[in-house]
Amino acid sequence: MERLPVAVLGATGMVGQKFIVLLENHPFFEVKELVASPRSAGQPFGKVCRWKQERPLSSEIGNMIVKSTEEELKSKILFSGLDSSVAGPVEEKFAHAGHLVISNSKNHRMDEDVPLIIPEINPDHLELIKKQPYTGAIITNSNCSTMFLAMTLAPLHRKFGVDAVNVTTMQAVSGAGYPGVASLDILGNIIPYIKDEEEKLETETQKILGTYTEKGVIPADIKISAQCHRVPVYDGHTETLSIKFSNVPSIEDVRNTLAEFRGLPQELKLPSAPDNPIVVLDEEDRPQPLRDVWTNRGMSLCVGRIRECPVFDVKMIILGHNTVRGAAGASILNAETLVKTGYYSTDFHNWIYSVLYSREDSLKR
Amino acid sequence: MERLPVAVLGATGMVGQKFIVLLENHPFFEVKELVASPRSAGQPFGKVCRWKQERPLSSEIGNMIVKSTEEELKSKILFSGLDSSVAGPVEEKFAHAGHLVISNSKNHRMDEDVPLIIPEINPDHLELIKKQPYTGAIITNSNCSTMFLAMTLAPLHRKFGVDAVNVTTMQAVSGAGYPGVASLDILGNIIPYIKDEEEKLETETQKILGTYTEKGVIPADIKISAQCHRVPVYDGHTETLSIKFSNVPSIEDVRNTLAEFRGLPQELKLPSAPDNPIVVLDEEDRPQPLRDVWTNRGMSLCVGRIRECPVFDVKMIILGHNTVRGAAGASILNAETLVKTGYYSTDFHNWIYSVLYSREDSLKR
Amino acid sequence: MERLPVAVLGATGMVGQKFIVLLENHPFFEVKELVASPRSAGQPFGKVCRWKQERPLSSEIGNMIVKSTEEELKSKILFSGLDSSVAGPVEEKFAHAGHLVISNSKNHRMDEDVPLIIPEINPDHLELIKKQPYTGAIITNSNCSTMFLAMTLAPLHRKFGVDAVNVTTMQAVSGAGYPGVASLDILGNIIPYIKDEEEKLETETQKILGTYTEKGVIPADIKISAQCHRVPVYDGHTETLSIKFSNVPSIEDVRNTLAEFRGLPQELKLPSAPDNPIVVLDEEDRPQPLRDVWTNRGMSLCVGRIRECPVFDVKMIILGHNTVRGAAGASILNAETLVKTGYYSTDFHNWIYSVLYSREDSLKR
Amino acid sequence: MERLPVAVLGATGMVGQKFIVLLENHPFFEVKELVASPRSAGQPFGKVCRWKQERPLSSEIGNMIVKSTEEELKSKILFSGLDSSVAGPVEEKFAHAGHLVISNSKNHRMDEDVPLIIPEINPDHLELIKKQPYTGAIITNSNCSTMFLAMTLAPLHRKFGVDAVNVTTMQAVSGAGYPGVASLDILGNIIPYIKDEEEKLETETQKILGTYTEKGVIPADIKISAQCHRVPVYDGHTETLSIKFSNVPSIEDVRNTLAEFRGLPQELKLPSAPDNPIVVLDEEDRPQPLRDVWTNRGMSLCVGRIRECPVFDVKMIILGHNTVRGAAGASILNAETLVKTGYYSTDFHNWIYSVLYSREDSLKR
Repeated sequence: MERLPVAVLGATGMVGQKFIVLLENHPFFEVKELVASPRSAGQPFGKVCRWKQERPLSSEIGNMIVKSTEEELKSKILFSGLDSSVAGPVEEKFAHAGHLVISNSKNHRMDEDVPLIIPEINPDHLELIKKQPYTGAIITNSNCSTMFLAMTLAPLHRKFGVDAVNVTTMQAVSGAGYPGVASLDILGNIIPYIKDEEEKLETETQKILGTYTEKGVIPADIKISAQCHRVPVYDGHTETLSIKFSNVPSIEDVRNTLAEFRGLPQELKLPSAPDNPIVVLDEEDRPQPLRDVWTNRGMSLCVGRIRECPVFDVKMIILGHNTVRGAAGASILNAETLVKTGYYSTDFHNWIYSVLYSREDSLKR
Repeated sequence: MERLPVAVLGATGMVGQKFIVLLENHPFFEVKELVASPRSAGQPFGKVCRWKQERPLSSEIGNMIVKSTEEELKSKILFSGLDSSVAGPVEEKFAHAGHLVISNSKNHRMDEDVPLIIPEINPDHLELIKKQPYTGAIITNSNCSTMFLAMTLAPLHRKFGVDAVNVTTMQAVSGAGYPGVASLDILGNIIPYIKDEEEKLETETQKILGTYTEKGVIPADIKISAQCHRVPVYDGHTETLSIKFSNVPSIEDVRNTLAEFRGLPQELKLPSAPDNPIVVLDEEDRPQPLRDVWTNRGMSLCVGRIRECPVFDVKMIILGHNTVRGAAGASILNAETLVKTGYYSTDFHNWIYSVLYSREDSLKR
Repeated sequence: MERLPVAVLGATGMVGQKFIVLLENHPFFEVKELVASPRSAGQPFGKVCRWKQERPLSSEIGNMIVKSTEEELKSKILFSGLDSSVAGPVEEKFAHAGHLVISNSKNHRMDEDVPLIIPEINPDHLELIKKQPYTGAIITNSNCSTMFLAMTLAPLHRKFGVDAVNVTTMQAVSGAGYPGVASLDILGNIIPYIKDEEEKLETETQKILGTYTEKGVIPADIKISAQCHRVPVYDGHTETLSIKFSNVPSIEDVRNTLAEFRGLPQELKLPSAPDNPIVVLDEEDRPQPLRDVWTNRGMSLCVGRIRECPVFDVKMIILGHNTVRGAAGASILNAETLVKTGYYSTDFHNWIYSVLYSREDSLKR
Repeated sequence: MERLPVAVLGATGMVGQKFIVLLENHPFFEVKELVASPRSAGQPFGKVCRWKQERPLSSEIGNMIVKSTEEELKSKILFSGLDSSVAGPVEEKFAHAGHLVISNSKNHRMDEDVPLIIPEINPDHLELIKKQPYTGAIITNSNCSTMFLAMTLAPLHRKFGVDAVNVTTMQAVSGAGYPGVASLDILGNIIPYIKDEEEKLETETQKILGTYTEKGVIPADIKISAQCHRVPVYDGHTETLSIKFSNVPSIEDVRNTLAEFRGLPQELKLPSAPDNPIVVLDEEDRPQPLRDVWTNRGMSLCVGRIRECPVFDVKMIILGHNTVRGAAGASILNAETLVKTGYYSTDFHNWIYSVLYSREDSLKR
């Protein structure tokens, strides 16, 4: 299979950098264009980017000349890690110009005609694209902390019905970009506030777990209350959940439902898909960000301490890698899903058809 | 007023050290005896203690010869910061010998005849002492994280009735004693497990908020579900609460009820009592351990982000100083309450009488 | 004594905030004007300042309307914590307008006619003011890490002659202002580079320890080599020194010389002066920033582990509070020195006279 | 090549665990025996070991029954990560019993007949084994911080002659084992003391850089002065060096000499050998532990900021992975050197011969 050329929008930012790292040697995609603000455009990437990744910048990428968001692009697929202050109109412009914008930015997530996708959970929501006014399309993934909550609730909700969940998050500083959180605010401290994060957790989760209909997605009727905190951890968002069910399962049922959960990416054996999207840890003091965040290359979330809740039915703790599965890795998995299910090699409506009405066929390719 | 001689049990431990710091220049008490394990006994305190406090050890205390828990003591009042592995029988022995043991240890907290006291909330529980088989008595304060939860719930429960509360804690390393948490386990990490902590939060809070009767304390009928974590913070336990009420108050009602809360220590103007035991912060990103833990010398807890909860009725975040208000300072406030209400200057039964049946009289002293 | 009205330039910055904290209830000075960039001017201080201090902002200061650096000021004495990007011309402007600018900014420190003062060491350098072209004057204190190095070397240099010193620093994040160091750069990390810091340590120390002459200050002939690092510590700069002497003293000599060191501020009993500017700690594992940085309210530096050096003669470790003694507190001590020695209550030349030629007289006031 | 069975002594400790991690899938060695104190013996490793590594414990290792240090062992090669409180006699016992003890423990490092080896630098010191009274042998690697200092100095010393070096270290907490450093001592703090560390840096470096003679190793005549600190960093020891040379090289000479340095392990293409043992970084703010410690899988050290020193000749900063290249990885590289140079496949004296007198022959194998 020939690798498809792709562009990274917002390439100098933290999500953009993570796209570059995760797409290195990717079997489907090859980074051919790096796009940033007009201020950086025209210069070698290595010169304008404050590289903060754990592996060194390759000279190939470092020497690539940065393009401006105002230029036209050659790549059909664009990965967007644009800052939310500019993502809105820029992503629309490229979608109008026929590009497939795979976005990690928050701007269009809650738009009625934009699919907010976790491929293991709601690939059928991709059909929303038919409602978009673009010749291309915009496809989004959720906020990082939403990702882990929605992924955990999905299999439980389908099987037992989730009525309500109280969630408290302890989020890593890498989720705030760079320079992001000032060291004076977080060394030995907790910041009990992340702008708009609690709202995102509540509304995005309801959309992801919602039901697709001709008229759009009907949000899931799950009450969600979130309390979000920044903590002095580098990578990995931890969340405590207390869940109320319609049909109360046993602890063993919950454990097995989570551990056995698989979705479309596993079925399709997508390159970024972990064998099991949820890993259940049975030790009494796990998961821990420092020790478990890289489980399955950061693409699985870890769940631990599943036990009875004296107030609701079940409580547990979950952990995921916020910049991998919770951001750039999620976008890449979305793109892999689209490519493997056939969109990119046929026309748009055929693709919708192939994914949603005769998946058996598309899976054969 | 002449200062009463007191002893500190478990003086070399972290709670013992904090007793020494907080009792320096105390108007009621003077540390005259330092008690530790037989291993340390007979040696100068400064030699056997690994002093970890922010102010230097005074030479007077440093030169004091440590006594063994097996010796007899002269002080009537004993502050106990004994390790739970030994506190049980040692505290009983001293209570039998006529001492008033003011304990921060967990061993006797849930005993039916032992009062578990927060003086602002349940000083009437002191009457439990009458049931004790000792010539002296044992009086305890709660676990640190319980302290802040119970203090917050108490005024709300009385006014509006609390049915249930989900609580997630982020607890400082100083709560684990010394050497306590290994740096390899907590630098940049979260440990989602503290042995027995969740159970303590649930049962101790119910006892503190319970009702005193002739037959003992009837625990409050509040459902509590706790999830406890150790985080890389030095001092200060943060807790998120989501509360369900019988009679749902407005956010303003909750705010004012907490901010206006006062109790017996404030009435008695006890030396360690803060003017207001609960300080409400209105900034959107407070309280923070690094900035707010020393509010009113660490004796007040801070509450912030009081807002509506989509699942229950009200959510908020609370913060308290775990080794001051949550441990040694709590014991000292208990002792101040006893002294000021008259116990120590009359005989035991007279004291019970004076405290509980004619407090007006005792308050005049 | 009536308190003199003062202004704080750069009041919203970290050094400016520390000026406000340290000047609260100061016996000599009263903050009457807060000055910041035109952007903040005209608004209440509490609204434009991101307050990051450990004690809450008083309502009096919080309600004060911020003035612009472009306005005229009423206060005679100005404390400058201006950012170095603007301090140069602004400080000159105010000095020309007759103000006494007590500056913590680096811009004019190395000017030939500007005294770089540590009052314990080189108050005679104040005479440089006579060379200034201003109707007022500019007086500076050193860079934070320089302060601790120069203070340690001064008494040793006078007594034994210091030929050379190798110094490695481990500097706290609060020294970088706010937002300053990004948490992604420093959590669990060391940054082995602080712009211009090594040069400042080398040149400023030579000037402070230099000799005043009619023609200016002749820098001390001490070879200094510095290696500077940012470490994940909140407050407190630690420095290791390895010193080569002209006349090699015994370890005991070094220890006593440092411990017994006193200067003009001690003689004058200035309000901010510590009893002993250098505190020698004899424990094998001290000083430590977390435990020792507040020694004498952050105005003393601590020295420990004084021992023989196999390469040079003596090695040791020093620690000081970078935002107190190393910045705002240093400026305030400079101002106290000026006031107490008589400048402010007489005319300018009389003051020079009184300080330098008949200090006995001025000390009587 | 068939894998040789090996045992890990002190397998439950931090160094022991790292041996297990690094020996997984090793081309030469296969862990067949895990040895610990009699207390742990007889039980499955997974039950008695508090596993603290970044990758999960394999079930094969986890199920292995731990042997006691008092038992006889089958493996010829023993990797020792024994605690220094027991390593001395235990290692001797096994050496007498014919085992080749490759030790990371400090106990025998400075023994006259024990080689202290960095294979890139002094493989000829292996000949010391001939003086040992054992049927087997003891071979040691240095202390972690010594490793990086000696490796940096070696090529410079050979080429330009090093007279003296001042070194200040900032050492990670993982160097102190588990539980090791208490979090209360290191969160936001620096501990300016590591027991015996400064002495080790000084004496071990002199031995490693020393000259082998018939009568033993003559220590290198380099004056070394070390100041050692523990800092809140997880992995990676940082050291600042200020070096005085006999023949002062240019900065470029120093840079190239370090970057081009290669030794026997590179020549032999040993499995654990990095292509270049020293990686020179040219950015002004590198190396940083968080970003550079895993360079070449933690087997290379990084050097940065090579520049002129106003006091000596050249200063620089170095960084190495303390538990990989500085401990377990160093031992493994020592063992690989022995095996590849022929010891293990011939008799002892033949091996000595083959290594030292006809290396060309041995290299051909």
